[in-house]
Amino acid sequence: MKRIVILGSTGSIGTRTLEVIEAARGEFFVVGLAAGRNVELLEEQARRYRPRLVAVGDESAARELSGRLSDLPIRVLSGEAGLLEVAAMEADQVVVALVGAVGLLPTLAAIRAGRRVALANKETLVTAGRIVTEEARAHGVQIVPVDSEHSAIFQCLAGQRREDLAGVILTASGGPFRETPAEELSRVTVKEALQHPNWSMGGKITIDSATLMNKGLEVIEAHWLFGVDYPQIRIVVHPQSIIHSLVEMVDGSVLAQLGLPDMRLPIQYALTHPKRLAHRATRRLSLPEIGRLSFEEPDFQRFPCLRYAIEAGKMDGTMPAVMNAANEVAVGAFSAGTIGFMDIPRIVAHVMNQHAVVARPLVEGILEADRWARQEADKVVRRK
Amino acid sequence: MKRIVILGSTGSIGTRTLEVIEAARGEFFVVGLAAGRNVELLEEQARRYRPRLVAVGDESAARELSGRLSDLPIRVLSGEAGLLEVAAMEADQVVVALVGAVGLLPTLAAIRAGRRVALANKETLVTAGRIVTEEARAHGVQIVPVDSEHSAIFQCLAGQRREDLAGVILTASGGPFRETPAEELSRVTVKEALQHPNWSMGGKITIDSATLMNKGLEVIEAHWLFGVDYPQIRIVVHPQSIIHSLVEMVDGSVLAQLGLPDMRLPIQYALTHPKRLAHRATRRLSLPEIGRLSFEEPDFQRFPCLRYAIEAGKMDGTMPAVMNAANEVAVGAFSAGTIGFMDIPRIVAHVMNQHAVVARPLVEGILEADRWARQEADKVVRRK
Repeated sequence: MKRIVILGSTGSIGTRTLEVIEAARGEFFVVGLAAGRNVELLEEQARRYRPRLVAVGDESAARELSGRLSDLPIRVLSGEAGLLEVAAMEADQVVVALVGAVGLLPTLAAIRAGRRVALANKETLVTAGRIVTEEARAHGVQIVPVDSEHSAIFQCLAGQRREDLAGVILTASGGPFRETPAEELSRVTVKEALQHPNWSMGGKITIDSATLMNKGLEVIEAHWLFGVDYPQIRIVVHPQSIIHSLVEMVDGSVLAQLGLPDMRLPIQYALTHPKRLAHRATRRLSLPEIGRLSFEEPDFQRFPCLRYAIEAGKMDGTMPAVMNAANEVAVGAFSAGTIGFMDIPRIVAHVMNQHAVVARPLVEGILEADRWARQEADKVVRRK
Repeated sequence: MKRIVILGSTGSIGTRTLEVIEAARGEFFVVGLAAGRNVELLEEQARRYRPRLVAVGDESAARELSGRLSDLPIRVLSGEAGLLEVAAMEADQVVVALVGAVGLLPTLAAIRAGRRVALANKETLVTAGRIVTEEARAHGVQIVPVDSEHSAIFQCLAGQRREDLAGVILTASGGPFRETPAEELSRVTVKEALQHPNWSMGGKITIDSATLMNKGLEVIEAHWLFGVDYPQIRIVVHPQSIIHSLVEMVDGSVLAQLGLPDMRLPIQYALTHPKRLAHRATRRLSLPEIGRLSFEEPDFQRFPCLRYAIEAGKMDGTMPAVMNAANEVAVGAFSAGTIGFMDIPRIVAHVMNQHAVVARPLVEGILEADRWARQEADKVVRRK
């Protein structure tokens, strides 16, 4: 049995990871869980899966959880220190399912402890791709992607020589506003932005899918995960979300991974790779039933976030962290109803324009850039 | 440099194999060529690629070719003995690009000599799949498929564990009569049947694509090549021929290989595998340019050959050889204008119905069944 740690266990990916573990009874057991503030769900998970360690966001939550779990031999930790302790605890694999830039330090802690990492937190590679991949190489740690697109690429590359890889093609559903005219985009509501056509995901990533920022972040992620240069990363809008992504080989052959949109599949593959496990819950893909798959070029004009993210990736250094932090603040403000949908790219662009890039920053430099960008973005939001 | 033998060098696959070898200058050199009657083209090929051995169909052709090549140090052989000698000559890989049941003995000769085989001749596996795969296993020889569909499956399986394979999905263009109503099929002409929508191939295989017999033969081929049971082999009609085939894994993940329809790609992969080689001649696949891919269930009623082939495969023993031989005769008669298009399945069914299956035949038994089926099919044709 593989010992699994889940960071972000109460979120969308975290809960599905637990579903996968439960369905694969006997293959895995949970030794550590960490979550932010959802004490109730975390208590339920702790009772069900009996981890050795549990971490919550702050001390008051920890006190509450400790009280609730007093009948069980489970240590309850809190804050960043608690999160890092769970990340580095004795285990076979750490699933990083935290949302946002908060995923960086625990991912590094898991890598430095030599743990195999299943990475669902894309901001880690977006903000600190160079550091994270260098540390992983130095510690002989494999980073297995959980994102359906990167899992697809990872699966396609399994039997291929890296030197034969010519490029990757990330598919994008196009989000709920794929066909919305530019002039209407500034008026779309939070509710509309949360209607993702194919995937049921967390709130932040769903808004990012509506602005296509999510695809931009994935481009940076793919750059670091697979060592592919930006010009060799293409995006294809594929509204049915059946082809999860593709790789192009030097001989012109293209390999793709397909499946019904169900995050349990890439999550499970990240846990079982290089093996696979039958999953009774997943439905079988029938192409005749689906009938047709369609493809179009992405619209970089209507969805400027996509352009900004790729530009930030190419500029490298602290810029991706700045772009990402500004986006997090802007998405938060949009979700709270403070700003409009098209203010998200405006704020990202504004903060990026204010930033003087620091090349090859250390972790501290990235965190500093992240803090600075949040302040700058906040200023713009407050002016609204 | 890899030493390559090409059996069937003047045919569609043979000439393209030489194109691939020429484009990959320095990777391969041709040591042996064999062809049927096209002395002129074989002379040209021999002059250009300077093989050590050349074989032609009969003695008079051999005498003519010998005369034409008298200025070169090339041995010219003839007949079945000549073909078998070239098949087993010292080489790194033998490309079997012969058309029809004539491919069986030279394929076995190459396998018994320990040569890695690139197999474009599907009748070999159709008629004697058990013997050929058992011999390959016994001699530690790898059979690499050249057919675009089987090459696709082979490429998809590269990084996967065989025990995780749940099934394969062969794509079929549907041929030129995909949308032709049943009542019109009996009146279609040879010229119409030779208009394949996507692939430019030899005559026999193009007619087989029009009756869907080609896909039926591929099902049997896939059964032997990949060790997949018949119920786990599905066919999907995909008119654009962009997805060349797919594999289904036990976890619900589906892997696919895509590319523009160009036989040089699977031919080259069969020669370079597990490596790949940049090919300047191949165009890059652009999904947005193609726009849409569509899928439908195959129509086993309008295309009974598909059904008969799969039935023959399931019955096993001598039945696939009988089905294949009857089809070869019927396709020949249709191409000569002697019978109608729907007489092809009628003749195949008639001959299959007359046949008493011999289980686990030896090569002699298969060849005997093949001869018998040709005679039976001929009788029906002559009655027309």
